Amino acid sequence: MKNVISAVCIKCGAEVAPTPDITVCPHCGGLLDIKYDYKYIASKVTAKDISERRDYSMWRYREFLPVEENTPNTPLRVGWSPFYEVPKLAEVLGIKQLWIKDDGINPTGSLKDRASAMAVAKAMEAKADTIACSSTGNAASSLAGNAAAAGLKTYIFVPSRAPKGKVAQLMIFGANVISVEGSYEETFRLSAEAIDRWGWYNRNAAINPYLVEGKKTVSLEIAEQLGFRMPDYVAVSVGDGCTIAGVWKGFKDLYQAGIIDRLPRLISVQAAGCCPLNTELQTGKPWQPMEENTIADSIAVGVPRNPDKALNAVRESNGIAVNVTDEEILGAMRLLGRTCGLFGEPAGVTGAAGIKKARQTGLIPADATVVGIISGNGLKDVNNAIKAAGEPISIAPDMKLLLEAFDKKGFNLK
Amino acid sequence: MKNVISAVCIKCGAEVAPTPDITVCPHCGGLLDIKYDYKYIASKVTAKDISERRDYSMWRYREFLPVEENTPNTPLRVGWSPFYEVPKLAEVLGIKQLWIKDDGINPTGSLKDRASAMAVAKAMEAKADTIACSSTGNAASSLAGNAAAAGLKTYIFVPSRAPKGKVAQLMIFGANVISVEGSYEETFRLSAEAIDRWGWYNRNAAINPYLVEGKKTVSLEIAEQLGFRMPDYVAVSVGDGCTIAGVWKGFKDLYQAGIIDRLPRLISVQAAGCCPLNTELQTGKPWQPMEENTIADSIAVGVPRNPDKALNAVRESNGIAVNVTDEEILGAMRLLGRTCGLFGEPAGVTGAAGIKKARQTGLIPADATVVGIISGNGLKDVNNAIKAAGEPISIAPDMKLLLEAFDKKGFNLK
Repeated sequence: MKNVISAVCIKCGAEVAPTPDITVCPHCGGLLDIKYDYKYIASKVTAKDISERRDYSMWRYREFLPVEENTPNTPLRVGWSPFYEVPKLAEVLGIKQLWIKDDGINPTGSLKDRASAMAVAKAMEAKADTIACSSTGNAASSLAGNAAAAGLKTYIFVPSRAPKGKVAQLMIFGANVISVEGSYEETFRLSAEAIDRWGWYNRNAAINPYLVEGKKTVSLEIAEQLGFRMPDYVAVSVGDGCTIAGVWKGFKDLYQAGIIDRLPRLISVQAAGCCPLNTELQTGKPWQPMEENTIADSIAVGVPRNPDKALNAVRESNGIAVNVTDEEILGAMRLLGRTCGLFGEPAGVTGAAGIKKARQTGLIPADATVVGIISGNGLKDVNNAIKAAGEPISIAPDMKLLLEAFDKKGFNLK
Repeated sequence: MKNVISAVCIKCGAEVAPTPDITVCPHCGGLLDIKYDYKYIASKVTAKDISERRDYSMWRYREFLPVEENTPNTPLRVGWSPFYEVPKLAEVLGIKQLWIKDDGINPTGSLKDRASAMAVAKAMEAKADTIACSSTGNAASSLAGNAAAAGLKTYIFVPSRAPKGKVAQLMIFGANVISVEGSYEETFRLSAEAIDRWGWYNRNAAINPYLVEGKKTVSLEIAEQLGFRMPDYVAVSVGDGCTIAGVWKGFKDLYQAGIIDRLPRLISVQAAGCCPLNTELQTGKPWQPMEENTIADSIAVGVPRNPDKALNAVRESNGIAVNVTDEEILGAMRLLGRTCGLFGEPAGVTGAAGIKKARQTGLIPADATVVGIISGNGLKDVNNAIKAAGEPISIAPDMKLLLEAFDKKGFNLK
């Protein structure tokens, strides 16, 4: 990898050789961050080069990715998700210009496909034939799908409380699923022990420094889809912190390679019922574990696994922190559906809910240009969609009854 | 529309002016088919022109679509779904070369987005502000989403037995949903009466001849994604017949404009529990209504609304008809998941199930080149995914128990 210098520990600063199977710092156990040679990258690629490419997947940004030149693209078409300017929603929110990146349109329905595709690519480099992780949600299903397509085996540990539907998705992709009768913490520990014992490739969040590098491709795309002109703000829903860390890394990479000339400010959006990282950002006091009290299950993370990279990202960007209630999340689901035809899961629309809140509370000005990211498909969580959406008109098949029902609803039909 | 000559009745042959709001033949009530000027199209566009375009949506094929030159593209990014060569699955099935087109990766998760985007475009041309249809499934949700994005109102009539999840998707998109306490037939009739009364734009399947023209874009993409070299067979799941009619129209259009030099044979796949059209193809006797006895709800159509176009398509292509059991459909879900990392709903994978069956029964030879289409996302029907996928290993968090469980499963781990 001529573009990669090393993996740097974000705690002690030690530099480690970027072999495909590194996890945490061998000296202090801190998380690692991939360090690039931006001069080399800048000598190899320009904005124009990128724009002319025909590979419409996350792999169009090879120069910015920590993979060997001969590592094949992963089989599923991950990335280059739709990017919509949404003037109607901008008007409703009182914002000058607004775009939504719909990352629910990915092979397994979430932004996590980007991280999992990267994990599969690195596992292939490591000549591993098996990848493992513990997760209850999108990380698991994206790993199972991307690995199956590449012919790799997976072992996935889920707590027994995991929703049946997500377990079914894993089973469909042929993952070896171990349902652990215990807490998520116990599940994680059993997975770690098993990974250690059998030497499987490790796709546990935060632990594997390449995952953030996959996630950052969402920012590379946002930049390109905006013609490399940066917006003022980018709003991201935040759980364990890996996604917002990835989003920031992507923008910084482009900036340091001279492809963009300014950086956006991040809006870190957490659920009010589970907002340890935002609490630190808002109060300045070190974060404390919180209960996981929100319908937005994918970001219900009381003990975030990547707090440092996430907090650094928001602070470096001169960003802001916004918490939203479950009601506000459900409201964002309705608003995105009705004004844009977009359908995100609760955690997926939390960023958009945060944009609304930030505008209402004056944290961002009316003349701002803002990007929101939908991180997961609404079909992943139909029960909460039902909660958000309300009930239809219900009548017997009779025109008279239809007229009465419309009248009662106040529909003014000619 | 310089590329369109007229709308021709497939029953009495009458030619009708192709205004944006035509429905059925004013003379005999037969279904209409859009007739193109292929010489004009051939003078305007070549395969190379198409390949060089940057609009990766269904609207890249403007010359082949029945819209005015100044009609804007619809807002959601419909089409250009992933197209995968799947050598592992080809090997399992004993077929020379196999590709899968994953049309579940569309904004609302199904191939129906193509028809609904076309309906929205034509409704805009007709200066309608409201579109209506009756449907329980993907047609409804795709209409609701595409119309919401374009700022059009929708009235959607569903029978009260419609699955809650699909109703929720409609409500999220802000559709006016009328849940009719009655059969689908009664629902359809009430919708027809209401459409007539209020003059809403009509997106009822088969009735609106433009819908098939939207659906055909899946074939235009398949052809382009294959470099305009045709496979021997294309397998399609069949319910009311509109999709297979659209698939055939797409290939024929390309052939008649000189863009491809041969036509594939169609494999019409129906569920064994509801196969009126295939029964006619297999026995030669006119089709009869059937019960709707299959888990593949999107193609559980006992009284198909587009039988003539569908039957013509299969016969013209010298195609074959294959019926598959629910067990075979569930098997196809597992097989696509495990070998390709793809997840389709039951009706969505019925085409693939048919390829397997056709090979097993010798209806297609081993040296065939075949394309299958996944028409809907597996997340649309999680209950049947659970049925297909089996149960995970379930244990307390203890390595000894994990070892025992692996041993019992016969896992041979070093």
